[in-house]
Amino acid sequence: MKSNASLKKIAGLLENAQSVLIFPHINVDGDALGSAAALCRVLRNMKKDAWILLEGEIPSYISFMDTEFCTEDANCITQPDICLCVDCNEESRMPKRADKYRAGKVRLCIDHHVTEDGFGDYYYIDGDEAATAQIIYKLILEMDADIDKTIAESIYIGISTDTGGFQYSNTSAKTHVIASKLFEKGIDHTGIMVRLHQTVPLKTVRLQAEILERMEVLADGRAAISYVSKEMLQELSASLDDAEGSVDLLRNIEGVEMAAFLKESDDSVRVSMRAKSFSDVYQIAAKFGGGGHAKAAGCTLRIPLKEAVEAVKQEIMAYWEKQGK
Amino acid sequence: MKSNASLKKIAGLLENAQSVLIFPHINVDGDALGSAAALCRVLRNMKKDAWILLEGEIPSYISFMDTEFCTEDANCITQPDICLCVDCNEESRMPKRADKYRAGKVRLCIDHHVTEDGFGDYYYIDGDEAATAQIIYKLILEMDADIDKTIAESIYIGISTDTGGFQYSNTSAKTHVIASKLFEKGIDHTGIMVRLHQTVPLKTVRLQAEILERMEVLADGRAAISYVSKEMLQELSASLDDAEGSVDLLRNIEGVEMAAFLKESDDSVRVSMRAKSFSDVYQIAAKFGGGGHAKAAGCTLRIPLKEAVEAVKQEIMAYWEKQGK
Repeated sequence: MKSNASLKKIAGLLENAQSVLIFPHINVDGDALGSAAALCRVLRNMKKDAWILLEGEIPSYISFMDTEFCTEDANCITQPDICLCVDCNEESRMPKRADKYRAGKVRLCIDHHVTEDGFGDYYYIDGDEAATAQIIYKLILEMDADIDKTIAESIYIGISTDTGGFQYSNTSAKTHVIASKLFEKGIDHTGIMVRLHQTVPLKTVRLQAEILERMEVLADGRAAISYVSKEMLQELSASLDDAEGSVDLLRNIEGVEMAAFLKESDDSVRVSMRAKSFSDVYQIAAKFGGGGHAKAAGCTLRIPLKEAVEAVKQEIMAYWEKQGK
Repeated sequence: MKSNASLKKIAGLLENAQSVLIFPHINVDGDALGSAAALCRVLRNMKKDAWILLEGEIPSYISFMDTEFCTEDANCITQPDICLCVDCNEESRMPKRADKYRAGKVRLCIDHHVTEDGFGDYYYIDGDEAATAQIIYKLILEMDADIDKTIAESIYIGISTDTGGFQYSNTSAKTHVIASKLFEKGIDHTGIMVRLHQTVPLKTVRLQAEILERMEVLADGRAAISYVSKEMLQELSASLDDAEGSVDLLRNIEGVEMAAFLKESDDSVRVSMRAKSFSDVYQIAAKFGGGGHAKAAGCTLRIPLKEAVEAVKQEIMAYWEKQGK
């Protein structure tokens, strides 16, 4: 928990403002967009001039969300009473919009990613919350504003996506309590689930099949490795985005404790690694100058894909040989 | 809702019994086993002679559950005061144990699958509950018994598996309220999620890759069809069980409204079909003498696999041609 203002204080500032510009992070996801959309609609219902300022496109998997107040026009409000960033707390997560954010008369920040410093004039950053949307829910209650079906759906999508559908370890009793309250607002749960989980692009499915075909299992089944090459992408008219999440397919295999997934791009090979329970993938990533932590780490190699796969395999096998001793 | 007894009545009967034998359905799943395990442990805590009588093995994906009081020995209690079936309400779901069930001095039934008739002397069958485990939770509250971590985990697994991880349309506000209460009992949520979602057998993954490689997309992307042959199973030392859920992989593709999955066995080909939103797969199944409903249907063909795939494809294409008119 890193905050210099209560939600009550932030609610009061928002209530007294006439114009509010909301900044979700770049590469917007379900939680950033859901948090922004829910709060923006509440402010609109209070007759305020409120907009969500985006940077880049909304990914197709969340394009069905409430985007009515989204814009890329930084001049939609000349000098906002309040600039509020949600689900991020650093300028690097809104590079092209940082000047506009600074132009706000008052700058606020609501997030669940704890970093070293605070951000803005008033910030409420709580790492115990599974999603920023959970904080937005509490903020709206603090504002004593009505949560209609559309607002409830935005919050629900934020929570559902950031907890991996109530599966990730950030899920808590609080998460389920809020979900139950949102159900009571009449959300179209089935419709949301179909949009989030039953709209996997065909090329993603085709790509996953290819990735699984190429998978190698190492170290007596304790590790799995696979890759996507430029050639595979070309054949399926796919992009690296379509391979997102593939490392989880490998990690989810019974007995696999460590998964590595390599993505070839024009000038380098990006490696994503995941551990399931007790192993430490950061140790592998660090060998190649990468970063991360025990459960999730990555690195970039500037050698041909085939050599990169071989190099990572060697390090993984060396890791498990050491464990065996 | 189809009940001839309240949960209070059932709680009273259980409290007054000395011996209770619990019958989950054959091909036991997370909800049947979780419901049985939770209630059995509560009864044990009340110093009663309580057992869970199984028929067949516990599938590996739920083998980590609380199975301390499971047995296949029907003589563990000679003549039980109460025989209670959970998550089923017909003898066909406990064929080899039906005689034993009938031997109970009082026969009870708790279920969320509504059928024509009741079952047993006293039954509580509520189709509005997402899982039988939700009813068991309410029953335990009615009994005023303590819910410890192990009991809470059994109930949580029951709910989580029967709602597809809070994704299926049976999920409700009530489901999330109960989940929040179970979190408060200190369940090992992360451990459960790893066991349920991150232990996919390697041969299942290999088989899914093969199934997706063989997938055909029909009717301008509105339908997808694939199959598993005896040969594919042999090559991977897999069984038809390892292909379970494959029809969902097909249905989950963007734009696919109708999915068909064919499984070849020694003397026939079993077809599973799913619709996503508005289409009616029962119409296809009915053409082949099958059954089911609009969203999920199936049929059995006694022709070679290749011909069966072709026949189902023809019917699917005919369906969509008719829709197009």
